[in-house]
Amino acid sequence: MDALRCLPGVGPKTAQRMAFQLLARHRDNARRLSYVLHEAMEKINHCQRCRLFSETDLCKICASTHRDAALLCIVENPIDVMAIEQTASFKGFYFVLMGHLSPLDGIGPEHLGIPQLQEQLKQNTIQEIILATNPTVEGEATAHYISELVKPYKIKTSRIAHGVPLGGELEYIDSSTLARALIGREVL
Amino acid sequence: MDALRCLPGVGPKTAQRMAFQLLARHRDNARRLSYVLHEAMEKINHCQRCRLFSETDLCKICASTHRDAALLCIVENPIDVMAIEQTASFKGFYFVLMGHLSPLDGIGPEHLGIPQLQEQLKQNTIQEIILATNPTVEGEATAHYISELVKPYKIKTSRIAHGVPLGGELEYIDSSTLARALIGREVL
Repeated sequence: MDALRCLPGVGPKTAQRMAFQLLARHRDNARRLSYVLHEAMEKINHCQRCRLFSETDLCKICASTHRDAALLCIVENPIDVMAIEQTASFKGFYFVLMGHLSPLDGIGPEHLGIPQLQEQLKQNTIQEIILATNPTVEGEATAHYISELVKPYKIKTSRIAHGVPLGGELEYIDSSTLARALIGREVL
Repeated sequence: MDALRCLPGVGPKTAQRMAFQLLARHRDNARRLSYVLHEAMEKINHCQRCRLFSETDLCKICASTHRDAALLCIVENPIDVMAIEQTASFKGFYFVLMGHLSPLDGIGPEHLGIPQLQEQLKQNTIQEIILATNPTVEGEATAHYISELVKPYKIKTSRIAHGVPLGGELEYIDSSTLARALIGREVL
């Protein structure tokens, strides 16, 4: 029970229910879970180029030859890569920070792989960096930090657009998003 | 009960409960509601300039002398004006379409006050039209229609920004919004 509580969203009650259910009815499934967890923890590491989770030195995206090396999209988490891949509208490479700058928690640039990123910048293949960190205060701060960092390399930097989400109605959109959508209006 | 069902979200059961409650306990409140409804229906009309609801010929916003006549923001509904006013980031005038183009429902430009809008365009005071219709298919179509209409007048037209709402996380944002945020990225 105690070990199960490391899973996100699992409290003491749920852990108890899980433990008894596995013991009573799903022993084979539990053995499989044990094996899979062990294998995953041993085999899955970070891609050496983009820091995405990968079993190989280079992840599938970084190893692909059909991608545009001129575009680099910087995101906070591996799950954001999934989200962007699902849009099927980006054909460049990624760089995963594995978090955002958070000085209070002791998370500085070195924890976000910034030195690795700088190595890539020096290679002179990147023509545009797209900052796709979350539209939160921490995400904005991290995007700002990286944009300052990139300046000396004379690479174009851009930030994903902020504004009203598609399909919504203005009356249900929060004031700050609406204000940003007005300020960032696009000339037709 | 039957009359109460004209209220949005009120079905037969709710109407029944409302009717009995008013009769049993809230007769004075019901009389007041009756009076207020009658007065409102008689007195409140549309502002002659922006078509917002107003008791006077010109609504408070249109009558104000502190607003910028060079900016005109076009919205679908009066409630959108409230939403934008709450952001405190827009100081121009409004024009309320009272709906969107919907040929299947027989709603054409003449129902949206387009002739009135054209009168205002001819007055030569407007320098920018901000299209703040909803980010829905119908809202986009209406915005496109108006932008085409404005072209001959050589007035700058803009559309509120589409993109990720503030404070969210990429992983919870729908694919189409995320795709739009990538396409519409702003160069820093």
